[in-house]
Amino acid sequence: MDGEAAPPRMSAAEIERFLETEFPQMHEGGRSVSIESVRRMGAVLRMAYHERHLRPGGTVSGPAMMALADYAMYVAVLAQLGPVALAVTTNLSINFLRRPARRDMLADCTIMKLGRRLAVGEVALRSEGEEDLAAHVVTTYSLPGAVK
Amino acid sequence: MDGEAAPPRMSAAEIERFLETEFPQMHEGGRSVSIESVRRMGAVLRMAYHERHLRPGGTVSGPAMMALADYAMYVAVLAQLGPVALAVTTNLSINFLRRPARRDMLADCTIMKLGRRLAVGEVALRSEGEEDLAAHVVTTYSLPGAVK
Amino acid sequence: MDGEAAPPRMSAAEIERFLETEFPQMHEGGRSVSIESVRRMGAVLRMAYHERHLRPGGTVSGPAMMALADYAMYVAVLAQLGPVALAVTTNLSINFLRRPARRDMLADCTIMKLGRRLAVGEVALRSEGEEDLAAHVVTTYSLPGAVK
Amino acid sequence: MDGEAAPPRMSAAEIERFLETEFPQMHEGGRSVSIESVRRMGAVLRMAYHERHLRPGGTVSGPAMMALADYAMYVAVLAQLGPVALAVTTNLSINFLRRPARRDMLADCTIMKLGRRLAVGEVALRSEGEEDLAAHVVTTYSLPGAVK
Repeated sequence: MDGEAAPPRMSAAEIERFLETEFPQMHEGGRSVSIESVRRMGAVLRMAYHERHLRPGGTVSGPAMMALADYAMYVAVLAQLGPVALAVTTNLSINFLRRPARRDMLADCTIMKLGRRLAVGEVALRSEGEEDLAAHVVTTYSLPGAVK
Repeated sequence: MDGEAAPPRMSAAEIERFLETEFPQMHEGGRSVSIESVRRMGAVLRMAYHERHLRPGGTVSGPAMMALADYAMYVAVLAQLGPVALAVTTNLSINFLRRPARRDMLADCTIMKLGRRLAVGEVALRSEGEEDLAAHVVTTYSLPGAVK
Repeated sequence: MDGEAAPPRMSAAEIERFLETEFPQMHEGGRSVSIESVRRMGAVLRMAYHERHLRPGGTVSGPAMMALADYAMYVAVLAQLGPVALAVTTNLSINFLRRPARRDMLADCTIMKLGRRLAVGEVALRSEGEEDLAAHVVTTYSLPGAVK
Repeated sequence: MDGEAAPPRMSAAEIERFLETEFPQMHEGGRSVSIESVRRMGAVLRMAYHERHLRPGGTVSGPAMMALADYAMYVAVLAQLGPVALAVTTNLSINFLRRPARRDMLADCTIMKLGRRLAVGEVALRSEGEEDLAAHVVTTYSLPGAVK
């Protein structure tokens, strides 16, 4: 429970450095995802508009949005708990709501519950400059052992 | 309803050719997903074990499994309905169950409901040669207009 | 799309009267759910703390929370669209986050997307007076025919 | 892991007796749910067709189906692990596929993964005598402490 009330333990820059080692494949083919900001129980990520993520029609593909949301939750958990490399996704559920625009996409993750064993969060996915959601994700991470 | 009882309208080879045009990005970076078979209300796909899909530890990443499952459902819908390029995913929910092996992954999709407006299917994801599931997906596609 | 921007078409009192006819079973065994308020693209419902909804330990049962969330989304859709008796739930996904308190429960539903065929909303379930969520729901309704 | 391969530890009759104490509210208003059978990693439950569970039109209500599925998973977990009164649902996701018939409903639950901390199962809901699914559920239970 303390984990939920505490301020973030890692800054965006510290997390970026940690992930260079832990998730190098996120940057394969060129760097396109970056951490905009972290806050208590939340984080915002940006995915650059890039041909690699597109589906026919020129909009961001569903799998690219799922990957971005998964990553946003991982960053939010890292920020709150510190480096827990073994946290793994157990469930991810996405609803695709509107066709994204041909622009960068922002993923805003809020952790709804941070227990000893599970973290549950939601992620709002929007094209930059849009108020309406392109997609909405709810996801659960299993946390390794006791939270330090 | 007729759509559910009818035999498949497209063969695996016909779907492969259709998708070369519609989903060329699936093959970007090298061809790794192929259609093993289609059947009434179902399809099996194979994703070759490939460095591009891996997470640290050498196992298939979650996003690669989500993309594979989404694609398997699209193939199963195409097989049953014929070429409906505008079918789009509205929901995808995945549970990650076991760490995959360092082998090809097979995705076996069964359409549970094929209505006029929505198709709902489940996808069992297994490492080749394993009986236990690596992940399980339930997904919904919205179908464009009336089913022909 | 117009449906999303318009003000609600029915008041809480009008919806209560409509549902007396359409959903009489909600009140079977005694009246325990009431509409607190409706707003553009949203509604708040209250479920009275009542022995009928409890599980051992005296807290609200999971099925009672699922029923409340489903009902909250129906009320929010009715408020926005007017009386559409044929709207039906196609998907409901709930995460149970914290043990509820022994008090009334409030369900706050926000419609995230109101399309011609589908409405997708989320519902925050809290024990009265609590800030933290007891449960979180995402649900989809299929809408009958064209939105008037 | 051993838990997955072992035969069931409790019979249907033993579970019924256990649940009389643990879940007495399931029978409130009259007995309508019974255990048809248990098997390794699975169970079948029956819900009698009963006015109490109906929605307008005389078919089984969504919340009644969600409650039945939740209960079926609990029975399957009990059968496999023995009496673990503290197992709790953490997630339940249901897709409503077809209008049920005016008959008893059967819920067939299969546990897909039984780990030390989480059990994940799917539940097929059918009106008696029907092959097609009325609804499909995937649900996760959190297991208390180490599996004995």
